Amino acid sequence: MRLRHKPWATEELERHPHIVIQNPSQHKGKWKELFGNDHPIHVEVGTGKGQFLVGMGVLHPDINYIGIEKYDSVLLTAMERVKESEQPNVKFLNEDVGELLDFFSDEEIDRVYINFTDPWPKNRHEKRRLTYKGYLRLYEQLLKRNGEVHFKTDNQGLFEYSLESFANYGMTLHQVSLDLHRSNYKGNVMTEYEEKFSKKGMRIYRCEAQFRSRKN
Amino acid sequence: MRLRHKPWATEELERHPHIVIQNPSQHKGKWKELFGNDHPIHVEVGTGKGQFLVGMGVLHPDINYIGIEKYDSVLLTAMERVKESEQPNVKFLNEDVGELLDFFSDEEIDRVYINFTDPWPKNRHEKRRLTYKGYLRLYEQLLKRNGEVHFKTDNQGLFEYSLESFANYGMTLHQVSLDLHRSNYKGNVMTEYEEKFSKKGMRIYRCEAQFRSRKN
Repeated sequence: MRLRHKPWATEELERHPHIVIQNPSQHKGKWKELFGNDHPIHVEVGTGKGQFLVGMGVLHPDINYIGIEKYDSVLLTAMERVKESEQPNVKFLNEDVGELLDFFSDEEIDRVYINFTDPWPKNRHEKRRLTYKGYLRLYEQLLKRNGEVHFKTDNQGLFEYSLESFANYGMTLHQVSLDLHRSNYKGNVMTEYEEKFSKKGMRIYRCEAQFRSRKN
Repeated sequence: MRLRHKPWATEELERHPHIVIQNPSQHKGKWKELFGNDHPIHVEVGTGKGQFLVGMGVLHPDINYIGIEKYDSVLLTAMERVKESEQPNVKFLNEDVGELLDFFSDEEIDRVYINFTDPWPKNRHEKRRLTYKGYLRLYEQLLKRNGEVHFKTDNQGLFEYSLESFANYGMTLHQVSLDLHRSNYKGNVMTEYEEKFSKKGMRIYRCEAQFRSRKN
């Protein structure tokens, strides 16, 4: 998305450290302590303005949600949403997804969400796509056994690419939907992008990809 | 498709045994002898009226094509097309796909095509879908190592199901297209169904699924 420059954003995020966690590597392996409970941890990579995660947090109070977003000016909106709703189960990291291994221990995460991520359509940018095998390797390491990645996008090319990437990594596919808003799928929480695009009649694509048990 | 009853069909097919091969189990393991060359063998399961296979036969004279279709009244059109074009590299079997093991030896086939097959949308009919794991097992046995299944359909539900079925069987996915006729894919030969549906602006879905090397 095109970003509006907000020079005060970083400062404002830092002023709410109970929502936007500072120095997240300090909590590696100890996120349950931070949340103060044993609930599963679901991570959204590229969480944007947080509409999805805040909606999920309301629907599922027994899940802890952590959204990762590197752009502070976008995350500001997400932070304000949680500040407003006072949800104890939704936190954010103003960090880069590529550094996930610094923030979580192996098998500390129960599910990964990827919603309306940048498609990086040029071939030479393949490695930047959050469904590239390099990222799948990160998710696999941090997810519990048979962990799942839930993926939504309006971008046809990215969905085609991601189906191949998931299958070629050896993941199984479930709940593939080539037109989510005209399907039977229940419990969908829309992102801001999704609201905008589906209102225009555009298709939303979705699938769940699951890692297989490791051999060793 | 709705079938027009043609009581003379079986008889007419039998009258052209050089095109519609009778007693195909006699040729098991020996199809190269029948074609009189060493060219790869590509099999289309549920070949219908044969437009795809006849088109492919013209484009690729160095491939041998065998189309399998159980409905004789449909296959009649396919047979007449080959009779007309006198193609030596296109043959048909008036048989059921479930009996493939009777007609081919292990690793005798180089590729399988599945085009616009019956979607069997009811859950209780899953086993009849030609992309059901039971059929994938047949194809895997008869295909050479790393053999490919090329799949096209206009049916969204069948495509969603088939992507899952391929991935969950452990196949890799390639050339996934969620809108074939507005993609960059070259060399597409249309089936009769495909012509009809794509003219109406409907999407055609396509992918290639490849078996992984067997472990043993």
